[in-house]
Amino acid sequence: MTAGTTITAVRIASDSPEIGQRMHSLVSELYPICRSITGNGLRETLRRVGQRIPLQIHEVATGTLVYDWTVPREWNIQDAWVKNSRGERVIDFQKSNLHVVNYSVPVRKTLSLRELKQHLYTHSGQPDWTPYRTSYYRETWGFCISQRQLDALPEDEYEVVIDSSLEDGHLSYGELLLPGESPEEILISTHCCHPSLCNDNLSGIAVACFLAQALASKPHRYSYRFLFIPGTIGSITWLSRNEHVVPRIKHGLVLACVGDRGGFSYKKSRRGNAEIDRAVQHLLMHSGETHSVRDFSPYGFDERQYCSPGFNLPVGCLNRTSHGEFSEYHTSADDLDFVSAEALEGTLQNCLEIFDLLENNRRYCNLNPKCEPQLGKRGLYREFGGQVDAQARELAMLWVLNLSDGQNSLLDIAERSGLRFDAIQKAAASLKDHGLLRLAEN
Amino acid sequence: MTAGTTITAVRIASDSPEIGQRMHSLVSELYPICRSITGNGLRETLRRVGQRIPLQIHEVATGTLVYDWTVPREWNIQDAWVKNSRGERVIDFQKSNLHVVNYSVPVRKTLSLRELKQHLYTHSGQPDWTPYRTSYYRETWGFCISQRQLDALPEDEYEVVIDSSLEDGHLSYGELLLPGESPEEILISTHCCHPSLCNDNLSGIAVACFLAQALASKPHRYSYRFLFIPGTIGSITWLSRNEHVVPRIKHGLVLACVGDRGGFSYKKSRRGNAEIDRAVQHLLMHSGETHSVRDFSPYGFDERQYCSPGFNLPVGCLNRTSHGEFSEYHTSADDLDFVSAEALEGTLQNCLEIFDLLENNRRYCNLNPKCEPQLGKRGLYREFGGQVDAQARELAMLWVLNLSDGQNSLLDIAERSGLRFDAIQKAAASLKDHGLLRLAEN
Amino acid sequence: MTAGTTITAVRIASDSPEIGQRMHSLVSELYPICRSITGNGLRETLRRVGQRIPLQIHEVATGTLVYDWTVPREWNIQDAWVKNSRGERVIDFQKSNLHVVNYSVPVRKTLSLRELKQHLYTHSGQPDWTPYRTSYYRETWGFCISQRQLDALPEDEYEVVIDSSLEDGHLSYGELLLPGESPEEILISTHCCHPSLCNDNLSGIAVACFLAQALASKPHRYSYRFLFIPGTIGSITWLSRNEHVVPRIKHGLVLACVGDRGGFSYKKSRRGNAEIDRAVQHLLMHSGETHSVRDFSPYGFDERQYCSPGFNLPVGCLNRTSHGEFSEYHTSADDLDFVSAEALEGTLQNCLEIFDLLENNRRYCNLNPKCEPQLGKRGLYREFGGQVDAQARELAMLWVLNLSDGQNSLLDIAERSGLRFDAIQKAAASLKDHGLLRLAEN
Repeated sequence: MTAGTTITAVRIASDSPEIGQRMHSLVSELYPICRSITGNGLRETLRRVGQRIPLQIHEVATGTLVYDWTVPREWNIQDAWVKNSRGERVIDFQKSNLHVVNYSVPVRKTLSLRELKQHLYTHSGQPDWTPYRTSYYRETWGFCISQRQLDALPEDEYEVVIDSSLEDGHLSYGELLLPGESPEEILISTHCCHPSLCNDNLSGIAVACFLAQALASKPHRYSYRFLFIPGTIGSITWLSRNEHVVPRIKHGLVLACVGDRGGFSYKKSRRGNAEIDRAVQHLLMHSGETHSVRDFSPYGFDERQYCSPGFNLPVGCLNRTSHGEFSEYHTSADDLDFVSAEALEGTLQNCLEIFDLLENNRRYCNLNPKCEPQLGKRGLYREFGGQVDAQARELAMLWVLNLSDGQNSLLDIAERSGLRFDAIQKAAASLKDHGLLRLAEN
Repeated sequence: MTAGTTITAVRIASDSPEIGQRMHSLVSELYPICRSITGNGLRETLRRVGQRIPLQIHEVATGTLVYDWTVPREWNIQDAWVKNSRGERVIDFQKSNLHVVNYSVPVRKTLSLRELKQHLYTHSGQPDWTPYRTSYYRETWGFCISQRQLDALPEDEYEVVIDSSLEDGHLSYGELLLPGESPEEILISTHCCHPSLCNDNLSGIAVACFLAQALASKPHRYSYRFLFIPGTIGSITWLSRNEHVVPRIKHGLVLACVGDRGGFSYKKSRRGNAEIDRAVQHLLMHSGETHSVRDFSPYGFDERQYCSPGFNLPVGCLNRTSHGEFSEYHTSADDLDFVSAEALEGTLQNCLEIFDLLENNRRYCNLNPKCEPQLGKRGLYREFGGQVDAQARELAMLWVLNLSDGQNSLLDIAERSGLRFDAIQKAAASLKDHGLLRLAEN
Repeated sequence: MTAGTTITAVRIASDSPEIGQRMHSLVSELYPICRSITGNGLRETLRRVGQRIPLQIHEVATGTLVYDWTVPREWNIQDAWVKNSRGERVIDFQKSNLHVVNYSVPVRKTLSLRELKQHLYTHSGQPDWTPYRTSYYRETWGFCISQRQLDALPEDEYEVVIDSSLEDGHLSYGELLLPGESPEEILISTHCCHPSLCNDNLSGIAVACFLAQALASKPHRYSYRFLFIPGTIGSITWLSRNEHVVPRIKHGLVLACVGDRGGFSYKKSRRGNAEIDRAVQHLLMHSGETHSVRDFSPYGFDERQYCSPGFNLPVGCLNRTSHGEFSEYHTSADDLDFVSAEALEGTLQNCLEIFDLLENNRRYCNLNPKCEPQLGKRGLYREFGGQVDAQARELAMLWVLNLSDGQNSLLDIAERSGLRFDAIQKAAASLKDHGLLRLAEN
């Protein structure tokens, strides 16, 4: 494999303007489905992703012990409403699945307004938004509505129906391994357990799906493992069933909230200076775009599990606007308008650049370590077009030669020189083609 | 021992407003005594401290070799004066012991003003202040007066008497060991060799005395060793007689100038990143009060000896306004008004918090290192009152779980998380109570 | 050898105002000679330097393989001109050797203005300056003139003559080893391959020559090796013939562009924190003068070869205004006025201080490591004149005693204390004289 050739073709292909649109279409297709951490909504979501990439669907039985946790009962819901005394649906699951507290137990009652209000949740800050609530581990029920809806409810007798079931069944997750030249893996994990929320969960599903498509048709050094899982319980379940895989994971990314119009935000792995951490930082720094890099904290998405002390995997988390920093988070305003085709495509490109860097981040040995080799006699000295460009290329070659002692990776060289990784990588490829470098042994 | 319970009770007790007053009373009681590096003034000071805590008084004979030094002759003084030709005491030791150069040899002479002036010392900057001078290792004599006193002295014949003695005797120091669960020790050292100076020496004596009282009645993990010693020669003497103790000293504090109204100033040990250094910095940083932290330098108090290269003990020095930064230093203005009950009490509290941190700074092992344990089923998830408070407690628990791999101490976790040590400590205690943590082996 | 005495005498001697003038005279003497990377101009330059210091001249035959390079043919030139149809020399090598592209092959032709212009080079920015151009590794010819000269050339038939030769011969370089007490070496390397350019090459030659003179007559711990070499090919040739010497090189400086009136600029070795790097930084920082310190990059002078990964020698590069930052670089404006006697002398002094620091940068063992020794009984405590001065000296002694555990060098102590190296060195000398320190074993 020649340095710099693996994923570049894909990167160019994905420049096509339609890819963002296709990702947004997938988001739109999945939007109405009522997902949860178990059940048919999650299963249907995985089935539709599986129409695009050869996803393997796993079903883990209720009651299975997964470390300190137990796979919960399966939740399914057909319909739910609150009707007033005139039989009108004043709260209607058919209009938005956010109206039902996720994992609500079945209920069929008639209640006064006062009694009903004990089970109604609103968003304090935004009178028109419906909040998203769950109750996975406590058996209860409830409805979520906007403050304006609540305020408009008159005294009345209300018929309350939640036609749900909470029964032994399975937890579902999807997995796809794209084998590479090496058994060493890059893990991409995204959660799929939220109902009609676009940035939070659907954006990650769409980007992960199209990343898998892009990588599937190309040779690559690393093997790529994609996980489409319910948050927390899903990564815990996967880890408990795949401890033998864990040592092969060399880098990993959790994708979440990657479709909004904000700049990228990267949260480092627990290790803090893993190759994935340095790779993402390098690319964001040289991107010239607003971004932020945060230290690891044990609060967030599934990186909490991958970075637990018993695993301590080099897995970071890529977001655009980070959760907790956009007010639409976990509300009905995280809708189809909140995510854009351009943002989804930008995330896809960014991920491909990250993987491209990791694929090409090799260590080389300068075959003429004593003094510089004579670049001129090989046509490598000012052979290129413009002067400024030529000087930059020479400088990149001199850096690669000077630091290629078998210890420094190309990313080490990029960091120390202050040059972009792709310039360093091109220089290394050119020097290798001219017999001046060889790949270092591991 | 449960984390977090050892010294907390003491800390609450010492919140009583009178403790500062009681320390100030001890300062007042000791103020008139004419201390020096040897002699009855020092001995009497130790005796009075010994009325409050079970101090062991050591007497080391003149001429004893202590490393490169020799225990000096014992200095005692009954009276001293300069009388004018009318028999009036124009300089009078009875009014202030600062008027005699400490360690002055006996003298009984009649001198002209010109001759007398060879032996008079004033303070250049402050015309009303009497400076404090010593001459331990050169046999001479002298008087210290204010510039205004000096200017007012007329031509006359002056009778000069210093009724002192410099004879073989002993160097005295006080020592108290409060045994803890472990033979590992925390050293608290304070100098007691200055005459009527309050911030410089009496404040340290008072705080050390009341610290010993507070710790004596409580269980503690560490053993605590208190030294009340003459500066320099005292710590050298102690070290030379206690080399077998030195390996047990895990942390240490020199207390000096801790009674003035300034913010805290901490000087790090020679090691620069010892646990005591990090503990004090953590507490000062989170105190929200003005403070300063300085790197070690070999100029200061007895930490010079403890941090000499042959020992290199983790001993820092706690001051309020550091010496050399308050103009009252080594003058008559370092008097009873210069130190306050509130400042003394604040220092006591700060020391107790430092020791509390050290006592509780353990390393733990997360007993569920693979993925997070399920906090909810143990009532640890949002079980607490207010949301914000609950979230902060959860975050502290997640940090403790994530970093408790047996390597990180609670202080490490506090530093990395940016949370306060006490929040981390409480989280660890709660997790340990729920069987989720165990103390790490050493 | 007593610390601090080795080069001090030289330093004082070189304070004489004439040394700068004598260096400038050497620059003037060498200025007219047409040097190149081989040939009689280089040889004559080495001969004249050899009149001042006992330089050994090496001749390496054309065709000799030196790593990836081959010693080129020898270039010599007698005369060159462009005459117009009236027989007037409109471009004349006799007026300035910069007019001929260095390493031009022989030519004897008659050309039209259009044809001639294919071989004329000017300086884009400065209409009155002649640029300096070379063509070492491509057989061609050309003339360099000012833009104003070019613009004034009328249509005409021009006789073009370059009376040069490019034939098998030798590459010359000069070498001088001043043996010291130790076989460990300090390398001083300067390039001598540029024709009439003063700051770029002649300033380095002059400073290196006078440094060798200054060091020759004095005892020193290190051996000093001076190299006067053509750039790039010279250092490559020397390294390829002296691999057995390389392990002895403990420190090194490339001298280049050290005669202009700008402040010092130091480029660190590839190691980045070598003793030479720290020494130069320490002195520049305490000099109180404007200066800059740059990280290593593989672009510059012969440090590129010394710092190639197969050698990785601790060799930095000392400049005044760095190349590329003065517009006179590689033009006729880098002339005798551009360099000053004062600047040359300042560089000489700076180099002597650097070597003085390296010579005296020893590690000592405190012979009383447990507690401080009693300075007073040895007359080391406030024995000196002024108070402030005495306090500074005491502080330096205390630092040396505290950190002299056999691990810290005097430069380590200077860096940690913030004191000047010479103050630390004097303190160490005084303590050693009083039997309180001994030199550490290696």
